[in-house]
Amino acid sequence: MPHFNPLVEKLSPPPVPSVLAWAKAYDGARGPLIDLSQAVPGYPAHPDMLKWLGEAAASADYIGYGAIEGEAELRKAYADHLATLYGAAVAADNVHITSGCNQAFIAAAMAVAGAGDTVLMTNPYYFNQETTLAMLGINVELAPLDAGAGFLPEVETIASALRPGIRALALVSPNNPTGAVYPPDLLQRIFELCRRNGTWLILDETYRDFVPDATAAPHGLFKTQGWQDGFISLYSFSKSFCIPGHRLGAITAGPAMIRQITKIMDNLQICAPRSAQAAVARAIPALADWRLANRAEIATRANALKDVMDRLPQWKLKAIGAYFAYIRHPFPDIDSQFVAEKLAKLAGIVCLPGDYFGEGQENYLRFAFANADVPTILKLEERLAGFALPGI
Amino acid sequence: MPHFNPLVEKLSPPPVPSVLAWAKAYDGARGPLIDLSQAVPGYPAHPDMLKWLGEAAASADYIGYGAIEGEAELRKAYADHLATLYGAAVAADNVHITSGCNQAFIAAAMAVAGAGDTVLMTNPYYFNQETTLAMLGINVELAPLDAGAGFLPEVETIASALRPGIRALALVSPNNPTGAVYPPDLLQRIFELCRRNGTWLILDETYRDFVPDATAAPHGLFKTQGWQDGFISLYSFSKSFCIPGHRLGAITAGPAMIRQITKIMDNLQICAPRSAQAAVARAIPALADWRLANRAEIATRANALKDVMDRLPQWKLKAIGAYFAYIRHPFPDIDSQFVAEKLAKLAGIVCLPGDYFGEGQENYLRFAFANADVPTILKLEERLAGFALPGI
Ligand SMILES: Cc1ncc(COP(=O)(O)O)c(C=O)c1O
Ligand SMILES: Cc1ncc(COP(=O)(O)O)c(C=O)c1O
Repeated sequence: MPHFNPLVEKLSPPPVPSVLAWAKAYDGARGPLIDLSQAVPGYPAHPDMLKWLGEAAASADYIGYGAIEGEAELRKAYADHLATLYGAAVAADNVHITSGCNQAFIAAAMAVAGAGDTVLMTNPYYFNQETTLAMLGINVELAPLDAGAGFLPEVETIASALRPGIRALALVSPNNPTGAVYPPDLLQRIFELCRRNGTWLILDETYRDFVPDATAAPHGLFKTQGWQDGFISLYSFSKSFCIPGHRLGAITAGPAMIRQITKIMDNLQICAPRSAQAAVARAIPALADWRLANRAEIATRANALKDVMDRLPQWKLKAIGAYFAYIRHPFPDIDSQFVAEKLAKLAGIVCLPGDYFGEGQENYLRFAFANADVPTILKLEERLAGFALPGI
Repeated sequence: MPHFNPLVEKLSPPPVPSVLAWAKAYDGARGPLIDLSQAVPGYPAHPDMLKWLGEAAASADYIGYGAIEGEAELRKAYADHLATLYGAAVAADNVHITSGCNQAFIAAAMAVAGAGDTVLMTNPYYFNQETTLAMLGINVELAPLDAGAGFLPEVETIASALRPGIRALALVSPNNPTGAVYPPDLLQRIFELCRRNGTWLILDETYRDFVPDATAAPHGLFKTQGWQDGFISLYSFSKSFCIPGHRLGAITAGPAMIRQITKIMDNLQICAPRSAQAAVARAIPALADWRLANRAEIATRANALKDVMDRLPQWKLKAIGAYFAYIRHPFPDIDSQFVAEKLAKLAGIVCLPGDYFGEGQENYLRFAFANADVPTILKLEERLAGFALPGI
């Protein structure tokens, strides 16, 4: 048999399906499964969202090839939304629609780096960013995040990691896996470091809409003079609109960068699926209140989890934020994969092991608490308190 | 400003939009525009197709993340279809659904080659295959196709181009841009050459359903012992079902290859859009007769174009097949881009210049005749006969 590309061959299989297999092996003994694994909203899409998706998909208007950059109506609706949220001059030609935020990331990565170049990430990291760079032959360097600093990147750490030649720094805020929300002034200082080093800042803002305070701008980067020459913002419509199956995301950047992304997207898949773009263009203004209500609900879930964890002194909540909590499990010598597998199979709690997110994460578990409603979150207390590893 | 990836920066902007700009500049003087540029079917999608797309998109069943490999129902429906078409044992686990055939190609290319590796293509070629490999830093070598051989690849040419180390040979049949349909025994011999050289054969079969004879299998590769260890078939649902805006394609390969593709697709975009997959799963069996009727209609269009070209001795039809005709224009010293631009602006005939498809193609134009009905095709005669280049 001819060879595979070794960069691809050596990637591990995608992690989420294997975790779902553990979940299937749970016998229900402790009650219904509590799924805190994949980052999917635990409430349904709005009925109007489904209606608009159906209408647009049934229409002959979106059946042909579309503009590579995205539907004009969605680019405008999203740009208007950003302009309001950030109080900044973001226009439709700053926006490129993609098939989700993973695709936004690979397109942005390809625009700034090729095989043999280096991109800086943090440790822990969102695993698809690491595997994406690895399969492209792009070198990854890791700046460590400290549990003691709440897993926020520290300016000194980033400054010393940003050596010349690093093409991009990839950050995620609110963070996956830790949930940590990076404060605006921290992002501002990091952006300045990047600019001085000739490094693009790629910021994945997939969970932006789940920060408790809806009134404050997540950061001031779009208001920084010359942002278009160094900042790339990534976003997913999957989580905020509960439509991951429809695959939509966005890149926001300067027009010169958008032109590079367009060439890449033409090769990656010509254009993002069109009818869902038309539906989301309607939903951005129309479902603003619904999204606010979800944001409040997720804040309530975060508070419920904090309360639960306060009563479980052996399980340490090390970070919690917009969607995720990052929890230190009580078995210091046991690998997080083993703990997560047993939690799923024996206690019916499905979460992701810290190992999946980087080096030295054996003691951590990621809880996607936003998936579960408050009554379900409260059930964690009894299950975690009574949890023991077999033979330990 | 930080650097762009030079491999991306040096790509030309996507060609199709610039051609559409020429079309916009046509003043209508010669009658309505005749658009033979983009490879989109010139008839609408079936009303049931729109209905099923709408139903699935409005359903909560397809709103969450789906299996990376694709919806089980579509993988099975497509595998069953292939099994019948090729008379071969193709199963659902041989199928990976993608967001269109461009994405199928980049995923297949990444699975077999990384930056610095070499892939063999033909000249002329489908331009997105070339730009995809170029942006990944994969070296492209070109095996020339001879107009005298009807632009079919010649066994000796391929044999001498397939030097050791070539990771894949990428072919397109029925071909874009020439329309040439590669005979089964030719494909068989080329596949044998590839196997002896340890080279994957990637065959893009996007236009398979438009070959006039619906009863003959396009090739026997799926019946070849060990095909799973060397053959990768790519397909697009865009053309046959008239749904390019919904972005669906497929890769068919051995399970070991499918596992590599799954890792790549997880990074590229997690999964293809789901609701359209559900709709196409219904359409594959249900719209079989409709697709047969389209096939017959396109054969009629091909015959109409042949008749027209017979009466235009200065314009030479060098190849014609499932969807495209490749035509030698009558201005030997003038570049095809200039000719195509003037044809669009002055005669209202929009086609693609041969230059877009490779080296030494200055004398050719690609007519996507399948876009136009017979009455429209007949109008070409007068417009082409009366066409002169300004100042020449
Ligand atoms: C940080 C982050 N980025 C991107 C994605 C992918 O989102 P999408 O569904 O838009 O591809 C996820 C999904 O979990 C994510 O957590
Ligand atoms: C040969 C060939 N392959 C692939 C494609 C892309 O098809 P899709 O719309 O499925 O991405 C095209 C579209 O024109 C094509 O001509």
